[in-house]
This record gives sequence, C-alpha cells and structure tokens, in this order.
Amino acid sequence: MLSFESDYVEGAHEKILKRLLETNLEKVSGYGSDPYCESAREKIRKACACPQAEVFFLVGGTQTNMIVIDTMLKPYEGVVAAKTGHVSLHEAGAIEYHGHKVLEIPGHEGKIKAQELEACLREFWQDKNHEHMVFPGMAYISHPTEYGTLYSRQELEEISAVCRSYEIPLYVDGARLGYGLASMETDVTLPILAECCDVFYIGGTKVGALCGEAVVFTKHNMPKYFMTMVKQHGALLAKGRLLGIQFDTLFTDQLYFEISRHAIEMAELMKKGFLERNYPFYLQSPTNQQFIILDNREIESLQKDVVFSFWDKLGEERTVVRFATSWATKEEDVRALFALLT
Amino acid sequence: MLSFESDYVEGAHEKILKRLLETNLEKVSGYGSDPYCESAREKIRKACACPQAEVFFLVGGTQTNMIVIDTMLKPYEGVVAAKTGHVSLHEAGAIEYHGHKVLEIPGHEGKIKAQELEACLREFWQDKNHEHMVFPGMAYISHPTEYGTLYSRQELEEISAVCRSYEIPLYVDGARLGYGLASMETDVTLPILAECCDVFYIGGTKVGALCGEAVVFTKHNMPKYFMTMVKQHGALLAKGRLLGIQFDTLFTDQLYFEISRHAIEMAELMKKGFLERNYPFYLQSPTNQQFIILDNREIESLQKDVVFSFWDKLGEERTVVRFATSWATKEEDVRALFALLT
Amino acid sequence: MLSFESDYVEGAHEKILKRLLETNLEKVSGYGSDPYCESAREKIRKACACPQAEVFFLVGGTQTNMIVIDTMLKPYEGVVAAKTGHVSLHEAGAIEYHGHKVLEIPGHEGKIKAQELEACLREFWQDKNHEHMVFPGMAYISHPTEYGTLYSRQELEEISAVCRSYEIPLYVDGARLGYGLASMETDVTLPILAECCDVFYIGGTKVGALCGEAVVFTKHNMPKYFMTMVKQHGALLAKGRLLGIQFDTLFTDQLYFEISRHAIEMAELMKKGFLERNYPFYLQSPTNQQFIILDNREIESLQKDVVFSFWDKLGEERTVVRFATSWATKEEDVRALFALLT
Amino acid sequence: MLSFESDYVEGAHEKILKRLLETNLEKVSGYGSDPYCESAREKIRKACACPQAEVFFLVGGTQTNMIVIDTMLKPYEGVVAAKTGHVSLHEAGAIEYHGHKVLEIPGHEGKIKAQELEACLREFWQDKNHEHMVFPGMAYISHPTEYGTLYSRQELEEISAVCRSYEIPLYVDGARLGYGLASMETDVTLPILAECCDVFYIGGTKVGALCGEAVVFTKHNMPKYFMTMVKQHGALLAKGRLLGIQFDTLFTDQLYFEISRHAIEMAELMKKGFLERNYPFYLQSPTNQQFIILDNREIESLQKDVVFSFWDKLGEERTVVRFATSWATKEEDVRALFALLT
Repeated sequence: MLSFESDYVEGAHEKILKRLLETNLEKVSGYGSDPYCESAREKIRKACACPQAEVFFLVGGTQTNMIVIDTMLKPYEGVVAAKTGHVSLHEAGAIEYHGHKVLEIPGHEGKIKAQELEACLREFWQDKNHEHMVFPGMAYISHPTEYGTLYSRQELEEISAVCRSYEIPLYVDGARLGYGLASMETDVTLPILAECCDVFYIGGTKVGALCGEAVVFTKHNMPKYFMTMVKQHGALLAKGRLLGIQFDTLFTDQLYFEISRHAIEMAELMKKGFLERNYPFYLQSPTNQQFIILDNREIESLQKDVVFSFWDKLGEERTVVRFATSWATKEEDVRALFALLT
Repeated sequence: MLSFESDYVEGAHEKILKRLLETNLEKVSGYGSDPYCESAREKIRKACACPQAEVFFLVGGTQTNMIVIDTMLKPYEGVVAAKTGHVSLHEAGAIEYHGHKVLEIPGHEGKIKAQELEACLREFWQDKNHEHMVFPGMAYISHPTEYGTLYSRQELEEISAVCRSYEIPLYVDGARLGYGLASMETDVTLPILAECCDVFYIGGTKVGALCGEAVVFTKHNMPKYFMTMVKQHGALLAKGRLLGIQFDTLFTDQLYFEISRHAIEMAELMKKGFLERNYPFYLQSPTNQQFIILDNREIESLQKDVVFSFWDKLGEERTVVRFATSWATKEEDVRALFALLT
Repeated sequence: MLSFESDYVEGAHEKILKRLLETNLEKVSGYGSDPYCESAREKIRKACACPQAEVFFLVGGTQTNMIVIDTMLKPYEGVVAAKTGHVSLHEAGAIEYHGHKVLEIPGHEGKIKAQELEACLREFWQDKNHEHMVFPGMAYISHPTEYGTLYSRQELEEISAVCRSYEIPLYVDGARLGYGLASMETDVTLPILAECCDVFYIGGTKVGALCGEAVVFTKHNMPKYFMTMVKQHGALLAKGRLLGIQFDTLFTDQLYFEISRHAIEMAELMKKGFLERNYPFYLQSPTNQQFIILDNREIESLQKDVVFSFWDKLGEERTVVRFATSWATKEEDVRALFALLT
Repeated sequence: MLSFESDYVEGAHEKILKRLLETNLEKVSGYGSDPYCESAREKIRKACACPQAEVFFLVGGTQTNMIVIDTMLKPYEGVVAAKTGHVSLHEAGAIEYHGHKVLEIPGHEGKIKAQELEACLREFWQDKNHEHMVFPGMAYISHPTEYGTLYSRQELEEISAVCRSYEIPLYVDGARLGYGLASMETDVTLPILAECCDVFYIGGTKVGALCGEAVVFTKHNMPKYFMTMVKQHGALLAKGRLLGIQFDTLFTDQLYFEISRHAIEMAELMKKGFLERNYPFYLQSPTNQQFIILDNREIESLQKDVVFSFWDKLGEERTVVRFATSWATKEEDVRALFALLT
C-alpha cells in the first residue's frame, strides 16, 4: 500500500534518532536548560541571521499557536486570520478556549491580502463603537498555507508594513516552513521571514522530527516569564533535551533545508506525472502538498492501492484530494503511483 | 560529576530507542490511531486487570493533570488535594488557569487522610451557603507522593470509599508510579490501584520514557470527545506513534516494572549508605526519592562533586536535600557518592 | 435637543419606580429567593403558557448571552450565529473570553436561514476531521434582530426543527423582545416562542426596566447549579428584589406588552413621516428601530437638533442612520422631528 | 418577625429612590458616560482627597473582585488573600474561573498580618523553582473584614509598605466600607485608605444602594481599555445612570457616612444589650456585624421571632451566630430584640 496521506506518517530523520541514542545516558538538566537546547537556539539564530532572536521549543503546532497567541495578545484582543487558517478551522477552538476570538478575513487559496487586512484594522478603529468589540491585536498567516501556497517576499513585506503601521505583531505559522523555504518558486528566505515578522515558528513535526516546533521571537519581544506561561498551558517538556537534540541535528549542516528540498523534488516529480496525464489541479501549489481533482469513481479505484486525503467536494461527481510528500518520500513510491494513474 | 538531581536527567531506556529506530519508516496514521498505540493500550489494560479501561496517551505530567481535572470537573467544581500536592504548588497555576480551584487540605508527608477528606466534603455539603462556594468535585492524590511516600492498600481503599460515598471521582497522579509499585514496602498493585480509583496515569517521563504519560480511565468514564478536548488544550500529538511505541515497549516483558525495581534497589542501597553513616533522614521514603538532612557546610562541600536538589530549609544551619535514583542509576555512582560522605 | 439615539436613554417605567418605593423597607432575602422574584417567575410562566419554565433574572444582555451560552455548551462546542449577531460583533468577545467560538453563518438583514444553519451542521458532521474542529452546540438568533427585523412563526419553526434534528438547543436573544411581540407584522407570540426554542430571554433593560433580563428555560433544561455558575460569572445580584420587582410589575396587567405597543406606534408614525417625505429606508423594519439613508450634508444639519445613531457608510456621500423609539417616546417628539425634515 | 440577617435585606435609601424618580425621563447616554456618573466620580475623588483617582461603577461585589483581580494580574500571577477572605471562600470560585489562583495565607479574625504577607512573598522569590509556581501578583484585604474587624492605620501602612517593596498592588475590598469608616474605633479615613492602596471599592449594595460598587484606582493605574474588559466580563451596565445617580446621591451631603454611622450606632446599642445580658462574643467587632455565641437551645427559641445568620459551630452545644445592622435598622427593632433575650 502506497501512502501520500500526510507529512507526518513516518518517524524522524535517522540522524535525529542516532543522535538521541548517542547522547542518551548523558545527564542533563530539564525544561530546556540543557546544552543541546542552547546549541540549537544558537544555530537557529544564525540561520535566521537574527542574533537577538529568542527561541523556545514546544511540542506541537496547535499548542504553539495557542500559546503564542494567548501570551502575546492582551485579554481584549483577538487574532486576525484567514477564514481557512488552521487557527480558524482545525484547532478544535483552542484559541477561543484560551479566551481570544479569531477575527476571520477572506482567504485566497489560503492567503490573506495586505489590503484586506488593512481594511479590517482601519474599519475597527474608525468604528465609534469599537470599545464594545474585539480589538484586532495580531495578524496570523501560515507559510506555506494550508493549501500549500506561499507568500512572495513583496506580499510578506506589505503585510508586515500594515501590521507595523497599526502596531500589532505579525505571527507566521511555519508548521511546514521547511517546504516553503525549499520551494523552487519562492524568494523568501529564513532571514527575510525573521525580518518581516515579529514571531514565527519553525515546524519540526512535519519536517523530519518526531515532534517539536521552534518558536522564534525576532524583536526582543518574548513575553516575560514565558516559561511559566508555557507550563501553565501544560506545554513545558521535562526532558527538554528531546526537542533540543532534534533541532540541533536539523540545523547542523543544513539538514533541515536538505530534507525539505527532497520533499519538494518529490512533489515536483509527482506534479509532472499528474500534468502529463492531464489530471486537473485544484490550485497551483509550489510546496509538498498537491491538490488534484478526481472523479469519484477514480477515487474508489485508486484507494485500493494508495492512501491520500479528501479535501473538498466539487459538485456531485468530483472531489478535491490531497497528495503529500515529505522528507521521507521515496522516488520509487511516486513512480509506483504513476503506474496506477490512467 | 555525579548526579542524583532528579529522575529525568537521562534520555530513555535503550529498548525504546531501538524500537523507535526499527519502526521509524513505517507509515502509520496520526493522533493515536496507529497500531503501536493500540497495542500499548491493550497491554496496559491487561497489566491493570481492567479490560474495560480506556487509555489515552499524553505528553507530560502537568499537562495530564490539567486535562484530566479540567475535563472531568463541572465548571463549578474544584479538586481537593494536599496543600503540598503537585497540582497545588508546582504547576504554575495550570489548574486555576483552566478555571478550577484546588481545594487544599493538609498533607502528611505528602499524603492526605481519608477522614480529613471526608470532613472537607461533609462540611461543604452541611454549609447552608455551599451554593456560593466551590463544589469539591474530585479528589487528587499522588502515588508516590511528592515526598516519595506511599499509600497502603487500606489507605487507598478508605479514600476510595469516601469518594464513592460522596460520588466524586478519585484521581491518582502516577508521575512516578513505577517506583511506587516496585517499592519493597507496598501492598498496592496496578490492579488494586485501578480498582480503587476512577482515573490515574502511569508516568513515563520519569520512568524510562523520553516523554509520555498513559491516562487510564477505569470505569467507562472517559469524557465524551476527549480527543477533541485534548486538542483544545494543545496536547494532541500528531505523531502519536512516539507515545505508543514507548508504552508498548515499557509494557512488553514487564520492562516498566523491571526498570522501576532497579531504581528502588539503587535507592535502598543509597539509603543504607546514609544510615550507616548516621545521616538523619527527613522522612522515611520507600521509593526512589530520599530526603536527607545536611549541615549547610556539608552541602557546600558535597556540591563540588555531586548534583542533588534543595528541598527545604531546616532552621538556619541545616537543609533538607533530595537524592533521586532512576531506572538509569548506576551502582558505581551510588558507591562513588558514599566515598564522598563523611 | 430631541433624542432617538437608542432605547435605553431613559430610566424605567414609573410604575416600576413606584413599586420600588412602596416595597423599599420590606425585609426580604437575597439572591432571587424573595417573594417578588417568585411572583414574577410565576407571571412569566403564565405569559409563556409554559408551566414548567424555569426563570432566572440577570442584569444585562451581554451578561445573559455569555452565561446562557457558556453554561449550556460543552467545552468543545461553539454557538452558531449570524455574522452580524450581537454575540459575534458587539460583546467585546465575551463568548470567546469564556471559552467558546462563535461559528458565524451569513446574516440576511440580521436573520439566519434554516437551510444555511442546516448546511453548517450537516457539513460539520460529514467532515471526517470534525473531531479536530469546534462542534456546533447551539444556535443563537436575536428576535428582533440587531436590524429590527423579525422571524415569522414559520421561519422560527423551521429553525427549531433543524436544531431538534441535530439535537442542539435553540437560544433566542430577546433584548428587545417586547418590541418584536408588539409589532403589527408578526405572528409570533410569547407561547409560540417558548414552544420553538429551548431557552430565551425577555429583555427588560430596553423595554421599561432600569436593568434586568429574564432568562426562560423552557424544556426543564436549566443547567444544574445554575445559580452557582451565575455567581462564578460575577452576575448574581445580592438584592434580587431589584429584578423581581421590575419584572413583576412589567408582567402585571400586561404592562410589558402595552408599553412595547406604544414604542411600535411611535415607530410606525415615524416611518410614515419618513415615507411621506420620500426618505429612502435601508431595510423594512417592523419594530422600534428604523434605518434611514441620509445624505452626509443632511446628517450634519439634523445633528444640530436631534441625536441618532450612525449605522454604516453607504459609499462616500450617504450613510445609514438609526432612529429608535422606546416605551418612553413622546408623540410630540416624533412630530418635532418631522418639522426638521426637508 | 425581626430581622438582623444581613445588611442587604432592605431596598435603598429613600433619597436615592427619589432621585431616580426625579431624573427618570431625562435622556442620557449609556455605559457610564452620563452626567450623573461624571458627577459621582468627581464627588468620590474629592471625598478620597485623590484628584487623580479613576472611578468605575460596577454592579456587585463578587463581580468587582473578579474584574479588578483579573484585569490587574498578569496571566501567571495569583492574588494573596486570607484563607477566610471573600475571594477565597464565598465567590463560587470566580477568581479561579477567570484563571487566577488565590494564594491563601492565615486569617486572624479575618485580617492578614504584614509580616506573614512579607514571608509569603519572600519565600516565593527565594524559591529556586519559583518559575514553576504561581507568582504572587497582588494582595487582597477586606476592610471591614468578613468578621467585621478593621485594620488600624498603622496595620494598613505596614501592609502597604510590604506591597510596595515587592512592587505588587494592594487591593481593598470595601463591600462594607462605610461601616468601617463610621466605626467608633478606627483611625482610617477615606483619604488614608486611598493613599495606602492601589485600588479599592466603595461598597454600595450593603450601604444604602439597590446595587453598585465604585471601584477607585488611586495611582493612575486603571488598566487600559478597562471598559472593554468590563464588557467582556458581562458587567457593563447599559443604563449606567442607575449607578451614577445612586453614588452621586450617596456622596452628596455626606449621606454615605451619615447612614453608615447610623448602622454603627445601632450595632453599638445591640452590643451593649448583649454585653449587659452577659452573652459571650465570638470576637470584638467594631462594625455592623456582631458575632455572638449562643446555646443551641437558645437559638431554637430565638429563631421563632428573629432572623439571624449561622456562622460556625462551636463544639456540639454552642454556635456562633451573626446579627447585622444596616443603614435601615430601626432602634425599636434592636430594643425588641433585647426583650427576647434572657
């Protein structure tokens, strides 16, 4: 059985597991104060060309979004996000559970537009009743988005400029950041991202780690007593080494970028295969998630041999499905998929 | 440098790391639906002699306490715990942050007394104003306690009886459960524990795992849509396999009990060493944490060669310190410690 | 200066103030257990033709929405409401602050459509990932809506049927309920409303009281220990008599309906005046709020003599404004307004 | 039937009701922006000799405590209070429900001691693990306390000094403040109180108003967008005039102090009556609440003619009961009580 179900069906890059084994019996202190965490933080600061960056390791994506948003917002503020954003739709209400509204604006293939963000902020402040409303206190974008799309450098800078003029932080959800940075169609680098936003996270779970996300505060703006608040949210890992060792490995010798590039190459190969066979694409994704439109009968037939994800219905007879590659995808599996296509 | 600082300074038992490596490239589904989680759940049910048990894997201890307590309590209820309980003191207010009061009763070397719990419950219900107060909706105990002490079977049964007569669940925090079950001075087994309480967790982080706690609902009482609420608390792990594989390994061939017994043997050896040298004990702990009273000058001298934890001041000149063993403690290290004692 | 700014610019109906004076020195017990609250509850049950109704008095509208929604929803549930609903827009995020998402669906002049509600519920349950999403656990409508519009009996019954088939409660925000029931264009009565919904509130603040809203649970469904949860939300009034006496007065000799009818008559008179002078209406409102489109220059001129509310911009030169009547509006004031119109 | 059950069994001082009637049909704006609120704020600033004070009117005591505490604390902070404090015991967990732990220290007849507060703060900061604990972020005292006792000026100043040296605000719950200020045994005035603390409230509900408490921020420290956060807690009153008119009346011609003095005179008369008849007092209260120890048989007999409150059991045969006077207590009622005593 082939599987392109998602980018978290395998374990971790073997270099990570090896490193865990090698360091296993070293006695180190807990809660992120060990030398591996420190080393990983330093490597990330360098990779971001952001020497003042404060880096904190958390375990998962929803956890990271909920903690960053909850600790950076004032109680009377909400976060502006695309209607299709992960925080809006697929986090079981974790943002609201911790007290904050997600102020939804339109999503365009997963992306928000700087001018629509600006309109949202402007209208709020112009409304005479705004003190009876939720204050927009942060902008959230994902890069790549939930639809695999990417912001260009110019788009990022425009959104960033809007945020600065309204004095709210820009937060970038980088659950799949590696695949965005390794895309063949991007002009956004890690330093550019760090420059444009106030806080972002480098996704580990979907890019080669067993678990783990590295939150990067880029502007000397990590909330005071952040560790205490992380604990309060139940998210402080006792054996912080587990996260430190993983990120230290991923940011040694460009491993994070290298394995991301492999996933992109596999996605490009897959894209070419679908194109050559005239399969219609739902949208053009330059990253590791590919959205194809299939006849429902074809789905039924393919499912016997391949696992993939349903995305959305397209009328009665057709469906959007997602095929995802990852750092672990094998070329032979992509070619085996082609053999099943008509 | 020797270290007896805590039971989470090493990585994981090597069998766990090996198993992670062996299964690493298998493609499995996420969020705890993989075969390793299923297998681990089944083994835990057997070890508990509790075929109806519902088992859910979470990442850490504070996270587990906060989620179990928050999802099992009604909004107007609090949890009764010892003043010295982990939930009362050392979780950065995670219980209150999620809306519930910790109703503190006295701790006796970390343990609560059935009659004091009963008095607390009785007085609440007899108070004519109780609808203006926080309802006691659950009893929390830790076993072993934060002081290394253990409840006897009879004590557990008495506390359990009080809870049943007031119709509130009994929750046991088993962060160090293995070390309690392996103690030479206990008559409590896993099946007895499962019988006495409504929900408990089997600690992995401090007993051989990289991370992970197995929550066991023993009475068909896992809250509905528990997974959704776990996600809402930011605690649902995408690669659930990481937890499943660890617990599956720990509950294969009695590994969990075997490695716990080793920690106890090391603790007993250490205890004997301190006794022979006439060091005063702060209390009698039958588990892996030993509390010794040291002169402040002796502390200063010992600290040059050994890491251990400060616990409490005892007047101006003496201090209670903690030496912890774990599944990974080496006999040679304990003996090296003796060489440093006067 | 004339004022049609809102329906809460005056104090209370004089019969209420008189009654407060008459009963002032009687010693009664607190927290809603006094005889006036009991009498008011009984009169409301009769007016609703709902003998089993449980009635609880609260102080204000946002408070009521937040408490009803928070205590009736499970932690993993949100409330479905129109994008323009009061809970979505104008409660400073009180619903989210208490942990629940407002799941927004389209508003049509303030109203939701049964089929769109049904689609929202159906799509949720059909989504294979719904356990990672917020469960729609209640439907919220306002009657009259924020735009002064009303649901017909049939529309209410259709929405009610959708809620029942998905087993979620229907909650009606009746901040201006009197004005809806007294409208000349409605076939909805209090008993019909009570039949259709699971919980609603009868607005006092905007309909003749100093403060106060009467929450009515119609299906033996008041959450257990509701009073304790009200206190927990800081909303339990010590001198409950203040609410009891007001509602007892409003529901004696049909006062609530009579004063509401007066507001409607004044609104109809005002409507006629605008129509005769060919002012364009933004929408047809059968209740006490009238939405007129004015040239910006005309607004400037009118504002010298009349207070009214801005509602929305309509391009660069025109604006939607609101004129509200109330139980206290004088016919001479409406006619004085006409004299100012061109 | 006589009643000394509590100080909120009557309505409001008649001057308040008269004033409500006189101003009833004036059209004023909502949410506290009306001229009566403004006038009341100004009078309170003068009475406090604190021209920079920011004054905000809320509806009830628990509501006020929960909002002041929640908006002034950081998320990781709790409030230090006596174990017997209202926020600790009798607010249904409203503080915890909004996310903050009440850090309990001993109560001495309701009062905390400066040195015990200091010890609590010192021990927290000295604890090396304090980042895993709840930060003490505010001190809460009630004046008069729940036991009717009062702090002396010196005690207040000592507590204030401790708070300042640890840079946390001191908050005084003045639910019964009038009765404290009017006591014959106090050297604390409103200006002294305003000087000593950072925020306090002047209780209206128990001192002559129908409802209402005036929160006074004394150090230019009202949290930003406080009104929005009040709304978010469901506590913003639409017809703010109801609160403004009441406090404006209470602070006109010293009414608040005058009616408080009456309650004290009645309490002193009552105290004398009990003393002359050799009834034992539970403690010496200089305010309007008197705590007497009665035989259980005597209670049974008295209850036929008088309503009073049970406070606490004192062994099997005796009980502490509370008799409360108020602004509305009649001398003839106190004398009628004497006639019933043995």
